[in-house]
Amino acid sequence: MSGFVSFVGSGPGDPDLLTLKAVDRLGRADAVLFDDLSSGPILAHARDGADLVGVGKRAGRPSPKQHHVSRLLVDYAKTGQRVVRLKSGDGGLFGRLEEELLALREAGIAYEIIPGIPSACAAAAAAGIPLTRRLTARRVQFVTGHDAEGGLPPDIDLDALADPSACTVIYMGKRTFPALLSALRDRGLSGETPAILAEAVGTEEQQITRGTVSGIAAQLAADVGSKPALILYGPLAEGNADG
Amino acid sequence: MSGFVSFVGSGPGDPDLLTLKAVDRLGRADAVLFDDLSSGPILAHARDGADLVGVGKRAGRPSPKQHHVSRLLVDYAKTGQRVVRLKSGDGGLFGRLEEELLALREAGIAYEIIPGIPSACAAAAAAGIPLTRRLTARRVQFVTGHDAEGGLPPDIDLDALADPSACTVIYMGKRTFPALLSALRDRGLSGETPAILAEAVGTEEQQITRGTVSGIAAQLAADVGSKPALILYGPLAEGNADG
Repeated sequence: MSGFVSFVGSGPGDPDLLTLKAVDRLGRADAVLFDDLSSGPILAHARDGADLVGVGKRAGRPSPKQHHVSRLLVDYAKTGQRVVRLKSGDGGLFGRLEEELLALREAGIAYEIIPGIPSACAAAAAAGIPLTRRLTARRVQFVTGHDAEGGLPPDIDLDALADPSACTVIYMGKRTFPALLSALRDRGLSGETPAILAEAVGTEEQQITRGTVSGIAAQLAADVGSKPALILYGPLAEGNADG
Repeated sequence: MSGFVSFVGSGPGDPDLLTLKAVDRLGRADAVLFDDLSSGPILAHARDGADLVGVGKRAGRPSPKQHHVSRLLVDYAKTGQRVVRLKSGDGGLFGRLEEELLALREAGIAYEIIPGIPSACAAAAAAGIPLTRRLTARRVQFVTGHDAEGGLPPDIDLDALADPSACTVIYMGKRTFPALLSALRDRGLSGETPAILAEAVGTEEQQITRGTVSGIAAQLAADVGSKPALILYGPLAEGNADG
């Protein structure tokens, strides 16, 4: 008797941005493995009596090794349980989904992937702007701002990121942004390129700061703060007044 | 008395991929302006008596001019109605959101943007793969495959799209993919690069075809078909058996 795992993207944190399918799977799960503390109101959709298991990845704090998480997931599923593996945003975007999929496949456990609202899309919506623009931003790219050691990824494609006609969204890049921007300016990106720092998107602590890439880099160099954040830059549209 | 407009991303077409917030707004709207016929089951969430207004953009068919859509949106809101402007996927990704936002701003009408599940994320989930991979695909980029005249966008960044370490998703690019691939191969992209053709994602007609960029281009050159589609390529992960 083998269980079943639903990888569920939970969106950025606002429980109203869960999909109907996510709510259904949470309500029928025997166990829910979740990443971070901001899952709080989302977990209210789990049924009474379900095991709620925090596996604790959160920016700036120590977390279990990925292979321990994969092992735990396999162990729960092997007892025949219906398991939800909750991942913030869309699990397929910087969610380390592949390691867990491989562990399940090796163990012969069936799974499904339910997409979620990506943090990048939620950040743009909160700022009142589209990520793409018909004539001026026809390419949008998402990148991670750090590698496993916390520095800039060594193989990052700086030319692609310095393209002034793309809208770029950096995940997990607050600490490395000043160094990244320095490299991008060497490749011709203007320091006056519009930028948005989107912190704690989809939570009560959400804060959207508009400025330029140089201004945001200076702010982060002075105080990186503790909230999870995305950095958007490029030919960004004007936002609405309350964004 | 001025109305209010909620731009609502409806996700790829599967009504279970609507967010709770989207369902709430649909249930309270006086009027729903929607794009294409695939909105059918999603519109079941509108309340009885709401005006359901098709504004008819759909691949390969004539559609109202964008400024007529913007005008209609303003007219509905000006009568004091609560309006939902439904856009497939995430409205901020190739949804021509900006023209409509500007029209509302000029008319002094308040709005909100509710993000939706992007078609790219739904396609990857349907294929059983993540869009990013920790060591091999740390950049993901979404581009549109055609400009207003239906050809390849003239200012498309071919070097960024030929990067073999990025996961690229092309929206609305079935007709232009053979020509695009030819240009990318001139820049060094291997014809054996893994690719997925994801058609009618999130609908009953969904079809996921795995192959290589060369194979997918040859298939499309022979028969472009009529279903809306995305093309994914890059160092794609292996999918699950039933994807």
